[in-house]
Amino acid sequence: MKIWQKNIDVDSFVESFTVGNDRVMDLQLAAADVLGSLAHTRMLNSINLMTDEDLVLVQKELKNIYKEILAGDFRIEDSVEDVHSQVEMLLTQRIGEAGKKIHSGRSRNDQVLVDLKLYFRSEIQHIIQNTEALFNELIQLSERYKHILIPGYTHLQIAMPSSFGLWFGAYAESLVDDLEMMRAAWKVCNKNPLGSAAGYGSSFPLNRTMTTQLLGFEDLNYNVVYAQMGRGKTERILAQGMSSIAATLAKFAMDVCLYINQNFGFISFPAHLTTGSSIMPHKKNPDVFELIRSRCNKIQALPNEIALMTTNLPSGYHRDLQLLKENLFPAFKSLNECLEIATFMLENISVKENILDDPKYDYLFSVEVVNNEVLKGVPFREAYRTIGIDIDEGRFKPSKEVNHTHEGSIGNLCNDQIQRMFGEVKATFGFEKVESALDDLLK
Amino acid sequence: MKIWQKNIDVDSFVESFTVGNDRVMDLQLAAADVLGSLAHTRMLNSINLMTDEDLVLVQKELKNIYKEILAGDFRIEDSVEDVHSQVEMLLTQRIGEAGKKIHSGRSRNDQVLVDLKLYFRSEIQHIIQNTEALFNELIQLSERYKHILIPGYTHLQIAMPSSFGLWFGAYAESLVDDLEMMRAAWKVCNKNPLGSAAGYGSSFPLNRTMTTQLLGFEDLNYNVVYAQMGRGKTERILAQGMSSIAATLAKFAMDVCLYINQNFGFISFPAHLTTGSSIMPHKKNPDVFELIRSRCNKIQALPNEIALMTTNLPSGYHRDLQLLKENLFPAFKSLNECLEIATFMLENISVKENILDDPKYDYLFSVEVVNNEVLKGVPFREAYRTIGIDIDEGRFKPSKEVNHTHEGSIGNLCNDQIQRMFGEVKATFGFEKVESALDDLLK
Amino acid sequence: MKIWQKNIDVDSFVESFTVGNDRVMDLQLAAADVLGSLAHTRMLNSINLMTDEDLVLVQKELKNIYKEILAGDFRIEDSVEDVHSQVEMLLTQRIGEAGKKIHSGRSRNDQVLVDLKLYFRSEIQHIIQNTEALFNELIQLSERYKHILIPGYTHLQIAMPSSFGLWFGAYAESLVDDLEMMRAAWKVCNKNPLGSAAGYGSSFPLNRTMTTQLLGFEDLNYNVVYAQMGRGKTERILAQGMSSIAATLAKFAMDVCLYINQNFGFISFPAHLTTGSSIMPHKKNPDVFELIRSRCNKIQALPNEIALMTTNLPSGYHRDLQLLKENLFPAFKSLNECLEIATFMLENISVKENILDDPKYDYLFSVEVVNNEVLKGVPFREAYRTIGIDIDEGRFKPSKEVNHTHEGSIGNLCNDQIQRMFGEVKATFGFEKVESALDDLLK
Amino acid sequence: MKIWQKNIDVDSFVESFTVGNDRVMDLQLAAADVLGSLAHTRMLNSINLMTDEDLVLVQKELKNIYKEILAGDFRIEDSVEDVHSQVEMLLTQRIGEAGKKIHSGRSRNDQVLVDLKLYFRSEIQHIIQNTEALFNELIQLSERYKHILIPGYTHLQIAMPSSFGLWFGAYAESLVDDLEMMRAAWKVCNKNPLGSAAGYGSSFPLNRTMTTQLLGFEDLNYNVVYAQMGRGKTERILAQGMSSIAATLAKFAMDVCLYINQNFGFISFPAHLTTGSSIMPHKKNPDVFELIRSRCNKIQALPNEIALMTTNLPSGYHRDLQLLKENLFPAFKSLNECLEIATFMLENISVKENILDDPKYDYLFSVEVVNNEVLKGVPFREAYRTIGIDIDEGRFKPSKEVNHTHEGSIGNLCNDQIQRMFGEVKATFGFEKVESALDDLLK
Repeated sequence: MKIWQKNIDVDSFVESFTVGNDRVMDLQLAAADVLGSLAHTRMLNSINLMTDEDLVLVQKELKNIYKEILAGDFRIEDSVEDVHSQVEMLLTQRIGEAGKKIHSGRSRNDQVLVDLKLYFRSEIQHIIQNTEALFNELIQLSERYKHILIPGYTHLQIAMPSSFGLWFGAYAESLVDDLEMMRAAWKVCNKNPLGSAAGYGSSFPLNRTMTTQLLGFEDLNYNVVYAQMGRGKTERILAQGMSSIAATLAKFAMDVCLYINQNFGFISFPAHLTTGSSIMPHKKNPDVFELIRSRCNKIQALPNEIALMTTNLPSGYHRDLQLLKENLFPAFKSLNECLEIATFMLENISVKENILDDPKYDYLFSVEVVNNEVLKGVPFREAYRTIGIDIDEGRFKPSKEVNHTHEGSIGNLCNDQIQRMFGEVKATFGFEKVESALDDLLK
Repeated sequence: MKIWQKNIDVDSFVESFTVGNDRVMDLQLAAADVLGSLAHTRMLNSINLMTDEDLVLVQKELKNIYKEILAGDFRIEDSVEDVHSQVEMLLTQRIGEAGKKIHSGRSRNDQVLVDLKLYFRSEIQHIIQNTEALFNELIQLSERYKHILIPGYTHLQIAMPSSFGLWFGAYAESLVDDLEMMRAAWKVCNKNPLGSAAGYGSSFPLNRTMTTQLLGFEDLNYNVVYAQMGRGKTERILAQGMSSIAATLAKFAMDVCLYINQNFGFISFPAHLTTGSSIMPHKKNPDVFELIRSRCNKIQALPNEIALMTTNLPSGYHRDLQLLKENLFPAFKSLNECLEIATFMLENISVKENILDDPKYDYLFSVEVVNNEVLKGVPFREAYRTIGIDIDEGRFKPSKEVNHTHEGSIGNLCNDQIQRMFGEVKATFGFEKVESALDDLLK
Repeated sequence: MKIWQKNIDVDSFVESFTVGNDRVMDLQLAAADVLGSLAHTRMLNSINLMTDEDLVLVQKELKNIYKEILAGDFRIEDSVEDVHSQVEMLLTQRIGEAGKKIHSGRSRNDQVLVDLKLYFRSEIQHIIQNTEALFNELIQLSERYKHILIPGYTHLQIAMPSSFGLWFGAYAESLVDDLEMMRAAWKVCNKNPLGSAAGYGSSFPLNRTMTTQLLGFEDLNYNVVYAQMGRGKTERILAQGMSSIAATLAKFAMDVCLYINQNFGFISFPAHLTTGSSIMPHKKNPDVFELIRSRCNKIQALPNEIALMTTNLPSGYHRDLQLLKENLFPAFKSLNECLEIATFMLENISVKENILDDPKYDYLFSVEVVNNEVLKGVPFREAYRTIGIDIDEGRFKPSKEVNHTHEGSIGNLCNDQIQRMFGEVKATFGFEKVESALDDLLK
Repeated sequence: MKIWQKNIDVDSFVESFTVGNDRVMDLQLAAADVLGSLAHTRMLNSINLMTDEDLVLVQKELKNIYKEILAGDFRIEDSVEDVHSQVEMLLTQRIGEAGKKIHSGRSRNDQVLVDLKLYFRSEIQHIIQNTEALFNELIQLSERYKHILIPGYTHLQIAMPSSFGLWFGAYAESLVDDLEMMRAAWKVCNKNPLGSAAGYGSSFPLNRTMTTQLLGFEDLNYNVVYAQMGRGKTERILAQGMSSIAATLAKFAMDVCLYINQNFGFISFPAHLTTGSSIMPHKKNPDVFELIRSRCNKIQALPNEIALMTTNLPSGYHRDLQLLKENLFPAFKSLNECLEIATFMLENISVKENILDDPKYDYLFSVEVVNNEVLKGVPFREAYRTIGIDIDEGRFKPSKEVNHTHEGSIGNLCNDQIQRMFGEVKATFGFEKVESALDDLLK
């Protein structure tokens, strides 16, 4: 059943090429599609395009289908083109003519648009939850190991003393800035495109403000041409938000792979969380972090892929946009898994103590010594020069005491401030308003 | 004068390779560098690392240098490595020993970090101003031409009636969502990294909260390792924000190039704003919009370039980061010029009236006719089928009346709502707080 | 069965995260894996690491498995980690101890490397075949419609006369240059990495020259560290080769979408090869070409994705590389389908005649008129100026005759030369040598 | 002087926006532009579009200008739009009317196309020369240090013995495969687009085969529409070729930064080739290699930038293409400098001996021990299991002897074969044919 079919058969080669993986991808939109129809039909009723009797039938059955979707009992049949047609077909099979009326006043285009925005909202919320769990784990580790020093590197050269407190805390704070990008993505997603029809609006007296409220959107995509233009753009912005978290994770994974390397040897994981080699019996490989790194770098490539697929397309819908689903949808799952397994691995991390006892790290303390001279009144450039000569001539002997007190330093991590910032950004999303609207809609 | 030089000369080949274009790039950081030093030295004084006398001398001379920079009288000498050394050298030449003390308690690393954040803040503000000018022009054009219909396309096929009101307004609303991305970039930039030294903090009792307030930052980059890690990340996020505006402009430019093409012929520009051909005397080429498109697509490539240059670098400073300036800094100028010239061109645009009188656009009205049947009670699928057959058999004759009334449609553009949204996002930046802090600092 | 398992169980979460989609991806490597083992075991026998009796058993059963793979009867069991383990397990189940001996003298690493190179070779050959079919169709259309003129555009402005002969022929010639990129990919793939073990060689006296000949490789990846380093690099180069063909196809698809648009109206396809709209009964959308464009732009994004996933990884194997399969392997299928359906669609294309009779195309002929004046002795700049004034003042009346005779022009397409070039590049691949070696191996 | 100017003045804002950096970029095309005109005018004479007298004047003066360009005495005046106009203006100033006739039978479009191809050819040759110098240095180092063992890593975990011979040699062999990509770029560049005019050919009876021979091109871009379509595509392919060399260099630089790190400590450079820190007197930073890595990663981003700027542009010239010069032209200089400085640094590298004496590297030899058991007749899986248990229980004691003999292994590097391959690919470019043709043209 393809609804644009009239009397002619589309060549089957063309059909399979154009449908592509859409049936698989669309499954993920099923719950959103039902939510959109619940709101759309209540609005149709309010402007007298659906009778009260039909509305009751439609609402009841849509809620049944919603439950089936949540239970995993929904599928898109091979003879059906997409999720929208499948829902409409089920509805018509079960409640008859009333089912056919839900398509009035909308087009596939705005139906997909609203489905995507609803789906993206729920995926963003999911990602934020997992990000928060990782954030909390990092803060905990930062606090737990704040007294254990490690070398800090610049240019990958031994530079100055650092600590596990700083290292774990840095990645926690990185997630705070990533949240700002996810918030931008959320803001862009949390506007209602429904009612834009095929991108040029409708002659029906639709009440778009009503569907906006029913679906818990913060605002409308007002201009109908823009509502359509948001396709591709929304995806790119969301991918950019995700790529920010992914970049943090990938960098952390790189650090882990380096620190677990035997030349560094700062951290380790239990044997059952590492993997072996088919020809080297001693290996304990950090495959999980290599795959986090690789998956996250793949996610970092997503915004560019979307840009390449949408650049220089004039305004108005193009079928090109369908394919944006194919790497983006799996990226939600992939990023969530990376966040979950990173948290899980960190719950099992072991850190090495007394790393700085190794004499190769003595030079870490040269700045401390320079600064102590400065505090005694020696000009910085002179102190720097003297210590430099001491080092060159092998006379340098540091005291390995570190007394950093300013905000964000080894002795004053300010993790409470970092937690405050995380909480402040998270609060601006307003997840609870959305949840409450959807609860009402499904009641 | 290279401050890390001791007794050995760095090979000149190595020197020219490592300095690269830094002197040119760094000129743009000069004003920010002075601002950072104004705040840093006041803080040094507050913790007794600079005497009151030295502070007076340093503040006065830094403000003089600031004025020279604004007046265009500042340059980086060939013998000087970067902007920081140039400012320090000038200061020392003019006020003696006191000039040398401004480097206490900081490293080149956090000095560059704070310079970049201050510079990025001012560039963001500049971009937002130009974006607002373009936004206002688009809204005006949308209102002025809201009654002139044009064909709306889907799949680049004639689809449904649209209007110049919708077309101009769509791009205005697109800029609202772009602003959300720029806001994320602003939030990330508006945090103070000063005091993180080489990325591992300092043994001096710095007061980072004080410099935060003096420089008008909203918050701190607390964790010193994260402050350093923000380099590269800040640039990528800012480039992503800019790429969002750039994508809107590039798409608009593609539409313009299509609509000015003689097969469409919807718009035109005065001859003196188009260019000719060396062998075709009739040509009036839309070079400005082709170059807007090309420049903006180049900007769209920036975030990926930055990702490629920073991915898989472990934490801690790497010299790689220096090169991020080279495409990013010119992109500010390029994007601003694109925004300005687009606004300028739009002030001179002419739109064609009565476009839809051409019979090839008759089919645009088929949905209207289907909907009218539905409003009379015919089921949608049946009305659709009947009109389809009429079209196939050449019987279709549309009334060319368009009566769209819902939010965001041809007859109800909601430009006031779009303006409200723009204003709301813009207000969250808080430019005035920053300006007021910097005014105080320079007083 | 995971061969690196000793006494400890890898946590199931870790296991599912690390295996990922590998079982699905690896299925495509099955035939290559058997070919590699056929050659490896013959070599093992030649250096006395496998008895003649074992070799007979192993060769016979591997050939059986090869037939099962070709017949679609091979699968990777859920309890088995990858294709290599599956083949080894089947072998051991069927022929006992001898099956276990095939892993001597190699590692998973070089086994995957050789599998990939063999698989890539066969995919390249497949792509070249489909490219040749499209090339031939384009040349045919170019010849068939060489007398039908169309407008040529520059800046998307009407510029000079062109023809369907030029248009189709241009894309044929574009494929010739694409072939040069595919040839580079082929050259890089056609070198033998087998024997490099885990990237550091083996203490066994392997005969790598022998496996090179048996597998029909043109040369060796000699240096074993480089053989390993080729992973990721080979994929990127192959993706760059594919992206070249994809760019040609995407550009052609953009032209098609423009020329089928009603404002241009140069070409059309039968109704059963276009698709309709759920709310606009008159639409005949070029979905196939929009999806070719989109798929090919996705393929254009692949090399960058691979670069992002491999950049800044130090030498030596990393698990990151496993994930390169996930977008690359489906891209082979996608590009082949695009080539096939483009050829199919072109077999059904209709072109419009007498397009240039429309007076809006009169200016196309201005250069001809200028040139005629020049041939009569008028200096170019003067002729250009005069015609320009004629056009501005509405006096311009062209003769619509086109008489271009030089190489590659409307009247002298040189399609035979373009065919010669295609043939010359194709001949340098040497597919027949590879086929003949593999035939011998499977005999 | 803008040649398309008639009676109207182009607004100066528009002019500066459209000219952009073209005068700076075009300087690099000056020599190529003269070469193209030398060939074009000889051809014009052969078809009676230029008199013998004019040809003599033009040829003589063009050769003078060519010498001025080589001597650095050529500049593009501010009042002149581009290099082509500058050359034409100089010519007309010096030899009068004859100078104006050189533009007959061509357009700016094919003039730029041929200039770019000639310029790219010379840049490719320059890159290949520098690549060969680096290749030779790597081969020499590989031979010199072939007996010094280092640890080989997989998953960045200590894995198996490697050697400096393998390490240097691997990067030499990597350059061989990169050469295949550069060869594809060369092949695409080495075809003549001259005579395609504005992309639709000319009514003049041009002899394109003649200019092809005069300019030493191997073949023609026959189809004139394709000749134009090659713009952007040629740049992308060339950038892909360069990105292949860049990827090899970037990876090598990453290895160097790791190996020079104090936790590894395998290599070092003299102090005057490293740089220091403004606050850490002991630092010897590998800035040169960090900047090689960063520059090369920037070059790796180029092909994607070009793709983003050209994707979805329909056929025919667009002004967008002008901007491709801006990152591509500086990339030639940047890549050449990276190749040169890498060679220079390698001439000064020191390698550490006896690295493997450190007991942390004992496990490197586990595979050797497993293999020795296998050679004694123990099944691989059993030997692997036994050694694994030995390692787990601390009983493992390796003999540190490495006896690898197969092709490409520690004991048999096959550098002669790698040199043979390099020479074979290089020979296929045919630089000498090009040089000989250009010598004739300039005689």
